[in-house]
Amino acid sequence: MIRLGILGYGNLGRGVEAAVQQNPDMELCAIFTRRAPETLKPATNVKVVSVSEIENWKDKIDVLILCGGSATDLPVQTPKYAKMFNVIDSFDTHAKIPEHFANVDASVKEAGKIGIISVGWDPGMFSLNRMYANAILPEGNDYTFWGRGVSQGHSDAIRRVEGVLDAKQYTVPVEKALNAVKNCENPTLSTREKHTRECYVVLKEGADPKKVEEEIKNMPNYFSDYDTTVHFISLDELKQNHSKIPHGGFVFRTGKTGLNKENSHIIEYNLKLDSNPEFTSSVLVAYARAAYKLNKEGQTGCKTVFDIAPAYLSPKSGEELRKTML
Amino acid sequence: MIRLGILGYGNLGRGVEAAVQQNPDMELCAIFTRRAPETLKPATNVKVVSVSEIENWKDKIDVLILCGGSATDLPVQTPKYAKMFNVIDSFDTHAKIPEHFANVDASVKEAGKIGIISVGWDPGMFSLNRMYANAILPEGNDYTFWGRGVSQGHSDAIRRVEGVLDAKQYTVPVEKALNAVKNCENPTLSTREKHTRECYVVLKEGADPKKVEEEIKNMPNYFSDYDTTVHFISLDELKQNHSKIPHGGFVFRTGKTGLNKENSHIIEYNLKLDSNPEFTSSVLVAYARAAYKLNKEGQTGCKTVFDIAPAYLSPKSGEELRKTML
Repeated sequence: MIRLGILGYGNLGRGVEAAVQQNPDMELCAIFTRRAPETLKPATNVKVVSVSEIENWKDKIDVLILCGGSATDLPVQTPKYAKMFNVIDSFDTHAKIPEHFANVDASVKEAGKIGIISVGWDPGMFSLNRMYANAILPEGNDYTFWGRGVSQGHSDAIRRVEGVLDAKQYTVPVEKALNAVKNCENPTLSTREKHTRECYVVLKEGADPKKVEEEIKNMPNYFSDYDTTVHFISLDELKQNHSKIPHGGFVFRTGKTGLNKENSHIIEYNLKLDSNPEFTSSVLVAYARAAYKLNKEGQTGCKTVFDIAPAYLSPKSGEELRKTML
Repeated sequence: MIRLGILGYGNLGRGVEAAVQQNPDMELCAIFTRRAPETLKPATNVKVVSVSEIENWKDKIDVLILCGGSATDLPVQTPKYAKMFNVIDSFDTHAKIPEHFANVDASVKEAGKIGIISVGWDPGMFSLNRMYANAILPEGNDYTFWGRGVSQGHSDAIRRVEGVLDAKQYTVPVEKALNAVKNCENPTLSTREKHTRECYVVLKEGADPKKVEEEIKNMPNYFSDYDTTVHFISLDELKQNHSKIPHGGFVFRTGKTGLNKENSHIIEYNLKLDSNPEFTSSVLVAYARAAYKLNKEGQTGCKTVFDIAPAYLSPKSGEELRKTML
């Protein structure tokens, strides 16, 4: 049995708790929390432990899955706990990955452990597909589309607008752009041409909808470069129709081969996810298996999805994999 | 520079020759042939060498790409030349992969080389996607569809029918079945429900079309389990409209997550290829890079796509990959 621990019990932590149930070679031994342990009610009967006691679990856990946020939690937590455990996180601040990698690498090497960072679907499975497709078709174009799905960051940005009680924002790929890529037209696409943004907004009493709509649509970085639609709805409607966290997207590589580049090829990978955090958790759990196996072999260091042979993710032996999946 | 050799100069060999041009870190040093070397006219100015002299090239080539057929060539050639070179092939007789793996493994281990077998898109990229998706979503269903594309085996089978001068067969996924999978209906699909077979047939003079059509449609293994349509066309039409070798297909995994399996997810990978052999060759060349790097590191043994970390396929460093593709 691979003994797992979770640090942080939000959507991602709950997703890992559920995913472990689907993997008979794994058990969840403890949820570590910064809150008072008794205030946390897990969905299964796993132990809840104060993070202040985590050091006592050094020999009781094989892999610690860090389920905090990329903004402030993971940059500190992953390097810190990498000194005690094999660790794995879903760090997704693309620009800061090199720095985070270096920090985690230093910690795990000191401890003789494995760290795997930026695991999930983007970064994660989407990155893998970009990389494989680029290696196979060196001459071509890459396209990534996200959605239709909820962007937590954009929903939060709307909630910060004065007069807004609550909100949900969906990122939606533009059908026309998607089709141009699928038809191998190799379009050059602006930000506006690739995605639209749909906002479902609940106003506070007395707020001015015109003013709120303008403020959302003109928000720099988040909305001003996009065609944005704002729908005002009731709190009941938001709860009833927009409480799920679906997401997904598409990775394409279109490329040419042949001595005269006469042949075109399209490689497409796409995801349609009812629950973004549960899918991300499922990827984390598969890579936790890889971290365990790699460390058992005596390997150490920080790794990403690029550095890990696919077979490490599976509970099946090489022989079984060749027989059933090749 | 990674120095490559090719054994066999059919569609696949020509594809490798073209693919090498797109990879600046590689050079094609020699094409080995069983024919008289002077009868072979390569598209580039690469050396053509009789296979009888291949042993002299032991230190002049880093990886030998075997471009023969899976029926009779590769089962003999890959283990044989694995004693002299790092080797890579596209062996695709699924049922015989375990045996082929064992034979190649014995040879390469003796020689301290790397062998990578069953590289291409199925087996190959499709296998990878099946495996990754199964590791991420342990509870779910797998679906593979092939086409629309030319099946060489089925085209050959038609050509063996009495009265047939030439033929091309397209395997076509059934739209209704594809949509049921995409809609997460988790259908149970019979062979007939998944694919249809379209045949374009040129008759010999005096042949009876009725008889030929019946014989094709009732051919066991190849056609009798499918809805097959037969179109009789002229040799000119066949040459003009059916001389390309397109292919492609879809790999789906549909799965559930959540403590009560309340969330559904779909992972889809699909390929649309103008040239099946050129795409397969492009995959072979990327894995030839992996074979070279793995052997440089001192590794040895037979491997498949499951055993190779994605980064080995790329000419970019780990740092570059993390910066640009993660």
